[in-house]
Amino acid sequence: MHLEGGQKLKNANLAYSTWGKLNNQKTNAILICHALTGDQFVTGKNPITNRNGWWKNIVGPNKILDTNKYYIICANVLGGCMGTTGPSSINADTGKPYGMEFPIFTIKDMVNLQLKLIDSLQIKKLFSVIGGSMGGMQVLEWAASYPNRIYSAIPIATSYRHSAQNIAFHEVGRQAIMNDPDWHHGNYYQKRLKPRHGLSVARMIAHITYLSEGAFQKKFGRDMQSKVLSWGFDADFQVESYLRHQGISFVDRFDANSYLYITRAMDYFDLTNPYEGNLSLAFKKAQCKFLIISFTSDWLFPSSESHEIVKALNKTTSDISYIEVESDKGHDSFLLEVKEFYEILSGFISGVARRINI
Amino acid sequence: MHLEGGQKLKNANLAYSTWGKLNNQKTNAILICHALTGDQFVTGKNPITNRNGWWKNIVGPNKILDTNKYYIICANVLGGCMGTTGPSSINADTGKPYGMEFPIFTIKDMVNLQLKLIDSLQIKKLFSVIGGSMGGMQVLEWAASYPNRIYSAIPIATSYRHSAQNIAFHEVGRQAIMNDPDWHHGNYYQKRLKPRHGLSVARMIAHITYLSEGAFQKKFGRDMQSKVLSWGFDADFQVESYLRHQGISFVDRFDANSYLYITRAMDYFDLTNPYEGNLSLAFKKAQCKFLIISFTSDWLFPSSESHEIVKALNKTTSDISYIEVESDKGHDSFLLEVKEFYEILSGFISGVARRINI
Repeated sequence: MHLEGGQKLKNANLAYSTWGKLNNQKTNAILICHALTGDQFVTGKNPITNRNGWWKNIVGPNKILDTNKYYIICANVLGGCMGTTGPSSINADTGKPYGMEFPIFTIKDMVNLQLKLIDSLQIKKLFSVIGGSMGGMQVLEWAASYPNRIYSAIPIATSYRHSAQNIAFHEVGRQAIMNDPDWHHGNYYQKRLKPRHGLSVARMIAHITYLSEGAFQKKFGRDMQSKVLSWGFDADFQVESYLRHQGISFVDRFDANSYLYITRAMDYFDLTNPYEGNLSLAFKKAQCKFLIISFTSDWLFPSSESHEIVKALNKTTSDISYIEVESDKGHDSFLLEVKEFYEILSGFISGVARRINI
Repeated sequence: MHLEGGQKLKNANLAYSTWGKLNNQKTNAILICHALTGDQFVTGKNPITNRNGWWKNIVGPNKILDTNKYYIICANVLGGCMGTTGPSSINADTGKPYGMEFPIFTIKDMVNLQLKLIDSLQIKKLFSVIGGSMGGMQVLEWAASYPNRIYSAIPIATSYRHSAQNIAFHEVGRQAIMNDPDWHHGNYYQKRLKPRHGLSVARMIAHITYLSEGAFQKKFGRDMQSKVLSWGFDADFQVESYLRHQGISFVDRFDANSYLYITRAMDYFDLTNPYEGNLSLAFKKAQCKFLIISFTSDWLFPSSESHEIVKALNKTTSDISYIEVESDKGHDSFLLEVKEFYEILSGFISGVARRINI
């Protein structure tokens, strides 16, 4: 496939999972786009990590994305490490893992690879494309680039371009990885080593940004691991032990180079790029129904960025619902059971289903 | 000296600078408390870094803290690396640098060492104790522990206890340092090495928290280093190159172990600890004039934490001014020229001077 950066990628694989059945008219397919460290294992047990799927509360029989009714598709993104071609895949030209030879790709490249899947499934129009965070970026890209391939778009807790602060957080994470001596300029695969420490620190940094200050205070406050201070550098506070655990457990399930490349794709994402900052031009052909959701305590993708999307869409299309959901759980709200969020999502999906007779 | 944690520190040195002259009544002394990575070189050239003092706009002849009128004192904190005894100092018992043998100390220990200096200068009562961020924590500790030794207290952009989110950011920074193989469990001094990468990453993380999201957007936005993307991992965005520079230049002027210990002191800080969460009990003997300042865009020490201080003080003393200064510059506002901040500070200092006839 041809990539936005001008490079070619040979024999790209796309690993995906599906649930439910595609109906005869092929009108009931919902594509779920996952976030930075997500994967295609949305519901059920993840066969690699043995953990529950990351959206199991939403996807399943009689759930909001009802697998009795819809054909649910989720693919591991381009550059990922759960089966789709990425930096840890073997480069056919060299017989070795790509490492840093892997070409830089964009959110649009991720979507282009998903489009090939949708084409191969002979689906003319997706019932919906839905995703949070980086998943939401893909949803917006679908709406902008392939407007006639979707009935509805549900971008959640996301933005049309990555902010300076978010680029900053990503850059620190990348520096942590690339400064780890076990990174070996990306060629760690054959050394039976990984940049464990660097990737773990990157995950810890990112994890702080996924919660709100209030969520930290509520969940941990200054609660201690034991009743007395260690007077040392052990994890005295529960928040420290929680973060260390998050960092360490992440290393086992994620590839450090994938982390570098995917964060880069997010940083590069700016839908207004071809339009000199004019977002409404990016959406000039958008014609689907939109449900845009943000969360009050999300400071990584604050509501103000969703407002910009709504404003731009208002200039080109009329079928937009925007809801700012009250939640104190920060950016992670889109992964958690937040009642108002679920109700709105459920209502919107039912509405689209009625309109196109499913 | 005896430390709060129960350990003793032998022959502790305190490096300090002064400006102006102590008057005969010894009533014109102002103690400035510096922040995490600050030092005693408040104004003029810093002889170590050759950079301007960090509060040169505020301290000097005819400035707000007027060195023609006041005797200004600033000491490097306990555990620091600018002359005061810290982890990089020689442990007389072993003849080697302390490293991680250095005892854990607290904000109160820092203040206790400052008190010894004030005693040795035979100053019965300081005209004012002033400081931002960790400096503000020291100011609050002075007001709580040595209420009869100060006429006025000016805690700026600070809190009475470190929040869970702030502990989290510190913990990630510490992990970055301690995971750096060049850290060698703190014994890097004699190896002609430093945990450069880890300390640099820690600084980058911290630096993000010092600015506001708005400041990032205004200062950098998505501005690029050059007009075309590198399609790689160079610093494409100005914010990346800025952060890398911040990280690298910090390593030359700061000791990694000092960073570990001082952040730990901040994490341990909770004025309510001896009072089961009741902050007004911590201030029950406070009798000085207070000026409390917070900044609207400071998300590291948000105004809500200053509100708590004001509420607690209101139960015990009446002489409190609290101002939330409008600024889009984030936590760093206390180091920058913010007109309203300067006007308020100047007015308060003049008021105290009138009251005690200086």
